[in-house]
Amino acid sequence: MIRFNCDYSEGAHPRILERLAQTNLEQLPGYGQDTYCLQAAETIKQLCAAPQAAVHFISGGTQTNLTVIAAFLRSYQGVLAPDCGHINVHEAGAIEMTGHRILTAPHRNGKITAEQVSRLCREHWQDDNPEFAPQPKMVYISFPTEFGTLYSKQELYDLRRACDENGLYLFMDGARLGYGLTAEENDVSWQDVATCCDVFYIGGTKLGALLGEAVVITNPKLQKDFRYTMKQHGAILAKGRILGIQFLTLFQDGLYLQLAAHANRMAALIRTACEEARFSFLYPSPTNQQFPIVPNEILKDLEQQYVFSHLKPYDHNHSAIRICTSWATREEDVRQFITDLKRLTE
Amino acid sequence: MIRFNCDYSEGAHPRILERLAQTNLEQLPGYGQDTYCLQAAETIKQLCAAPQAAVHFISGGTQTNLTVIAAFLRSYQGVLAPDCGHINVHEAGAIEMTGHRILTAPHRNGKITAEQVSRLCREHWQDDNPEFAPQPKMVYISFPTEFGTLYSKQELYDLRRACDENGLYLFMDGARLGYGLTAEENDVSWQDVATCCDVFYIGGTKLGALLGEAVVITNPKLQKDFRYTMKQHGAILAKGRILGIQFLTLFQDGLYLQLAAHANRMAALIRTACEEARFSFLYPSPTNQQFPIVPNEILKDLEQQYVFSHLKPYDHNHSAIRICTSWATREEDVRQFITDLKRLTE
Amino acid sequence: MIRFNCDYSEGAHPRILERLAQTNLEQLPGYGQDTYCLQAAETIKQLCAAPQAAVHFISGGTQTNLTVIAAFLRSYQGVLAPDCGHINVHEAGAIEMTGHRILTAPHRNGKITAEQVSRLCREHWQDDNPEFAPQPKMVYISFPTEFGTLYSKQELYDLRRACDENGLYLFMDGARLGYGLTAEENDVSWQDVATCCDVFYIGGTKLGALLGEAVVITNPKLQKDFRYTMKQHGAILAKGRILGIQFLTLFQDGLYLQLAAHANRMAALIRTACEEARFSFLYPSPTNQQFPIVPNEILKDLEQQYVFSHLKPYDHNHSAIRICTSWATREEDVRQFITDLKRLTE
Amino acid sequence: MIRFNCDYSEGAHPRILERLAQTNLEQLPGYGQDTYCLQAAETIKQLCAAPQAAVHFISGGTQTNLTVIAAFLRSYQGVLAPDCGHINVHEAGAIEMTGHRILTAPHRNGKITAEQVSRLCREHWQDDNPEFAPQPKMVYISFPTEFGTLYSKQELYDLRRACDENGLYLFMDGARLGYGLTAEENDVSWQDVATCCDVFYIGGTKLGALLGEAVVITNPKLQKDFRYTMKQHGAILAKGRILGIQFLTLFQDGLYLQLAAHANRMAALIRTACEEARFSFLYPSPTNQQFPIVPNEILKDLEQQYVFSHLKPYDHNHSAIRICTSWATREEDVRQFITDLKRLTE
Repeated sequence: MIRFNCDYSEGAHPRILERLAQTNLEQLPGYGQDTYCLQAAETIKQLCAAPQAAVHFISGGTQTNLTVIAAFLRSYQGVLAPDCGHINVHEAGAIEMTGHRILTAPHRNGKITAEQVSRLCREHWQDDNPEFAPQPKMVYISFPTEFGTLYSKQELYDLRRACDENGLYLFMDGARLGYGLTAEENDVSWQDVATCCDVFYIGGTKLGALLGEAVVITNPKLQKDFRYTMKQHGAILAKGRILGIQFLTLFQDGLYLQLAAHANRMAALIRTACEEARFSFLYPSPTNQQFPIVPNEILKDLEQQYVFSHLKPYDHNHSAIRICTSWATREEDVRQFITDLKRLTE
Repeated sequence: MIRFNCDYSEGAHPRILERLAQTNLEQLPGYGQDTYCLQAAETIKQLCAAPQAAVHFISGGTQTNLTVIAAFLRSYQGVLAPDCGHINVHEAGAIEMTGHRILTAPHRNGKITAEQVSRLCREHWQDDNPEFAPQPKMVYISFPTEFGTLYSKQELYDLRRACDENGLYLFMDGARLGYGLTAEENDVSWQDVATCCDVFYIGGTKLGALLGEAVVITNPKLQKDFRYTMKQHGAILAKGRILGIQFLTLFQDGLYLQLAAHANRMAALIRTACEEARFSFLYPSPTNQQFPIVPNEILKDLEQQYVFSHLKPYDHNHSAIRICTSWATREEDVRQFITDLKRLTE
Repeated sequence: MIRFNCDYSEGAHPRILERLAQTNLEQLPGYGQDTYCLQAAETIKQLCAAPQAAVHFISGGTQTNLTVIAAFLRSYQGVLAPDCGHINVHEAGAIEMTGHRILTAPHRNGKITAEQVSRLCREHWQDDNPEFAPQPKMVYISFPTEFGTLYSKQELYDLRRACDENGLYLFMDGARLGYGLTAEENDVSWQDVATCCDVFYIGGTKLGALLGEAVVITNPKLQKDFRYTMKQHGAILAKGRILGIQFLTLFQDGLYLQLAAHANRMAALIRTACEEARFSFLYPSPTNQQFPIVPNEILKDLEQQYVFSHLKPYDHNHSAIRICTSWATREEDVRQFITDLKRLTE
Repeated sequence: MIRFNCDYSEGAHPRILERLAQTNLEQLPGYGQDTYCLQAAETIKQLCAAPQAAVHFISGGTQTNLTVIAAFLRSYQGVLAPDCGHINVHEAGAIEMTGHRILTAPHRNGKITAEQVSRLCREHWQDDNPEFAPQPKMVYISFPTEFGTLYSKQELYDLRRACDENGLYLFMDGARLGYGLTAEENDVSWQDVATCCDVFYIGGTKLGALLGEAVVITNPKLQKDFRYTMKQHGAILAKGRILGIQFLTLFQDGLYLQLAAHANRMAALIRTACEEARFSFLYPSPTNQQFPIVPNEILKDLEQQYVFSHLKPYDHNHSAIRICTSWATREEDVRQFITDLKRLTE
């Protein structure tokens, strides 16, 4: 079976494993205070042209999301998010566990707009007793979104403006950030991300690392005491080095974006093939996740050999699926898939 | 500099890195549901003769402690612990963050007794309004303790009895479990641990792994829904395989206990040298952590070349320090330390 | 100005104040363990034909909701509620503060159906990783609803069945319970409520008391340790007597339902007048809250003399308002309102 | 039986009940926004010469403590308190439920010192990894303490200084504040309290009211959004008037301090009688709580007619008890107690 169901089916890019092996017997301080963590942080700050930023490394996405939100919000404050946001659908109530409500707005192609943010704030503050509802204080977005789509530079700066006007922090979940930045249609840069967001993270788990997310806190007012919140949530690894070494490997020599670009290329091949098969798509994704709507009959055949994520039945005869590529996707597997698809749809 | 300050200064045992590399490109399901996690769980259950147990893998100790305690206690229930317990001194209030009080009892050599447990419960229940204080519901101990000492088999079974009599769960923090089980004076077996505890964990981070703790829930009543609590605390890794593969490597062919025994041997050499130097010890530890009380003058010299954990000033002229060995401690470094110590104390 | 904006504009029914004065100098035990609390609890249990129930008294609605939900759910469990439910719109995220997500379903006339409950549970459990979302464990409904409407006996038993089939608790917010039970079209009895619900409460604050809600836990499995959770949330009053005395006064001699019936009668007069003025209604309420849609011009005139709750602009020329009666509403004020309304709409 | 066991055995001072009855049918806005709450707040601010303060009314002490602490601390911050503090011994873990550790220091006569505060902070910040322990951020004291004792003006200003030097808030639990301010030996004034504390509260429940505590936030930086936290913890009463009216009654015409002075006088009579009986005292209290150590034989006799709080067995033949007076304590009961005591001890 060939797995196209997610972007974390394999281990790590081999260069990462090599680096872990090379450094393995060095004796280093624990808790993210080793030289590799420091260098990785420095490299990321340079990349983002954000010398004032603070960078921390955390094991996984859910832990990062809950730690960031718990660190920056007071208990009565809520976080705005598209209803399809990862924190709202895949994290078992982790945000509520930390005491906060997720204030959802209906997404369009995975995204929310500055206008939605402003309206929700306006409604909150116009109430006679605003204190009877959670106070909106943060906007959570993903780039790319859960559905592989991207905010344009304009949309991102509009969200920033809406946040400024309403006293909100902007938090970007970049679990798949690289796939977004290297997408063909993307016009957002590292610097845009760092400029627009108070805090964001760069995902390693879904882009070539064994595990790890790099949290970048660009807003200096939010940097103090962040490690307390990390520790309180068990988010400081004793051997922090294993995160530092991985991010250093990914961000020296441009490996991170190369891996992302490869995955996007593989996804584009699949997208084109699906288009040629006259499949329509649930969402117009330019990144490594594709959401074709596939006739059930053909899907059944494909599933003899390929694993996909099932999204949902689309209609009586069709299903929406997710096809995912990654740094590890082999072009020969993609070619074979395309050949099989052609055979089944001609 | 040679670091004797902790047991997580290096990466992982080389065999673990090899195994990660060998399996790296296999496509596996995520979230701890891969074949390596399943095999590792099976191996651990057999080792403990606890076929009914549930085994889960979590990244680190603080996260494990907070997840276990949050999972098994209702919000008004508290966890009894020695005042020196890791959850009470090194976890930034993680347990309180989950809503629970730590009910501390004064430790003796890092340990609490069945009698202390019973007394604390008696005092709680004899109050006119027991509901005005957190209800004791769990006992947290470490094996070895923070100070390297061990509960005897008798002490462990006594605690179990006290727990049974008072309706408490017994939770053992085994972040350094292997060091305890392989200590010369130890009379506790894997089976004793599994029999006495409702839940315990086997530490990987401090004993040869890159990261990871294996939680063993032996009490069937506590097994349901544990993964919900894990997920809610960000404690399910997407690439769960990296924990499964490591524990499988450690527990096939007895590697785990071999590594622990090596560290204990190295520690014994150091202990003997300290005894010969007529140092006394803060705690009588038979495991990989040693707590000699060292004249400040000698300490200053030693610290030109060795890194220790400072515990505290002992008196005007002495300091209590912690010397820690691990699977990675090289006998030649220990020999050199002993030579230097002899030179300084003769 | 005459206030029709809510049902808690006045103090308490005079008989309550008298009773507080009569008993004022009696020396009584604190914390709800006095004779009046015990008698009130007994009276309520008899009324509900639920001798096995446990009854507790809490100051207000939000505190009751959060205490009940915190007491009965594990942190990873969520509570299903109509999106208009009080816990979702008027409680500042109190439920999330206790760690739980509110799983909302779109209401119809303030209500949710057994079918919605079953569907939401089905979706949860059919997911490949149910533990990635909060586990549904409780259904929260209000009787009457936020919009004054009522569940029929059939609907209530259907919800009970859906709860049984899905392992859920049924929790009824009865902040206005009396208004529902005495409504003309109602076919639900005290016993139905006690039979269908695992826990419910009888509101005093909005029905004649200075403050206070009586929580009735009919499910014996949920009764243990409830006072711990109460205390932990500051929900045990030192002078618990003031709640016991009030509920005893309300429930001896049928005062509670008399007061409710009066308010409903006053509301019916207003409803009829609105119907005669050809106003339509946002919701078809048979209880003390009425939701007429009023031409803005007329509303402006009425507001010279009357205070209403504004719900929202209905269209360009109309507003939906809430008119509320209570035990204290004077018929002469209602008559005057009707006269004024007639004058303005003829 | 005559109850000397606590200061909340009766209802409210009759003048309060009268005032509640007089105002009962007035139609007032809810949620503490009525004229009585506003007037009461104004009166209290004048009394404390703190025109910039914010005043809120909450039902009871535990709820006040948890709301204040939850409002002002970030989750990783802890509150310093004497180990005998109410939040540490009588509140069921309410503070931990809000996510915070109580950092206890051993009390002396119920009090902690500025030096203890400074030392604890120094120890925290000198640690290599301060973020591995909860960050001290608030000091909680009671005035009078749990044992009826008082901080001197000097001690209070010393604590303030220690708080300033360490970036801490000072929070005074004034559940029995009036008893302290009217004690003979007291040299602390309302203004001292307001000047020294960032936040304190004036207890009504234990000093003449049916229920209610008045929270005074003197630090302007802490005032914003406090009502959100109140609401989130169910601490805003719908009929807030009943708190406003009570505090207005207590603070117009000096009633509050008169009631306190009466209770202190009654306690002094009892104290003198105990001294004459050659009882020693567990704590040297000048306020309404007395802690004599009584021969068990005599205690047994007294308990035929009087109810006390048992503190603990003192030695084989003696018990430490608490005798409590209040606004409602009748001098004739005290005289009778003294007579009985004399008879038994002569």
